[in-house]
Amino acid sequence: MTGTLTRDAFVAAVTFDANGLVPVVAQSAATGEVLMLAWMNRDTLERTLSTGEVTYWSRSRQEVWRKGATSGHVQHLVEAWVDCDGDTLLMKVDQTGPACHTGAPSCFFRRYQK
Amino acid sequence: MTGTLTRDAFVAAVTFDANGLVPVVAQSAATGEVLMLAWMNRDTLERTLSTGEVTYWSRSRQEVWRKGATSGHVQHLVEAWVDCDGDTLLMKVDQTGPACHTGAPSCFFRRYQK
Repeated sequence: MTGTLTRDAFVAAVTFDANGLVPVVAQSAATGEVLMLAWMNRDTLERTLSTGEVTYWSRSRQEVWRKGATSGHVQHLVEAWVDCDGDTLLMKVDQTGPACHTGAPSCFFRRYQK
Repeated sequence: MTGTLTRDAFVAAVTFDANGLVPVVAQSAATGEVLMLAWMNRDTLERTLSTGEVTYWSRSRQEVWRKGATSGHVQHLVEAWVDCDGDTLLMKVDQTGPACHTGAPSCFFRRYQK
């Protein structure tokens, strides 16, 4: 069931949405903590695979967003996975500093309490 | 930084997209494995929080999708988290059987290999 894909096959396996984007779940390779979700287009996915520096497409700024380019809180790619129907990516990363722009280690710091 | 929210505050913290949906990362509460990504609207989010049975909105079928309703591979909600800007949810779940419709434990079974 598990398979490995070359870079070209990996990119070809991705189904980008109507805006040319795919959601990417970033997970700490070290701890398994889910850090954030952001988006990539084909170009930033290819940059990420080529350089090993996780690079998103900022939907709010409509520009290439190399994670940590200004903050220094970079993400080095450890593993990249594509899901069964190709419409979501999972990237296990080596996160420098906090992942969240608020300074929190993860963007998920608010929890529902019954 | 970490906070807890009541059910109403949690739902109010969510920013649904133009289609009224929010992406939800499902993670195994037991192992930390990321299982899948699917979508919820306000109604299925409220159902999930009320019942503890994870219930998505199927974009392909355009209908309520209680995970495991036909397969038995249900997800019981353990923890629900909302991210910093409210546009992604993380649900830690107790997954019965495989999460993926292919029979794989996780939908992320294809990996990029350099």
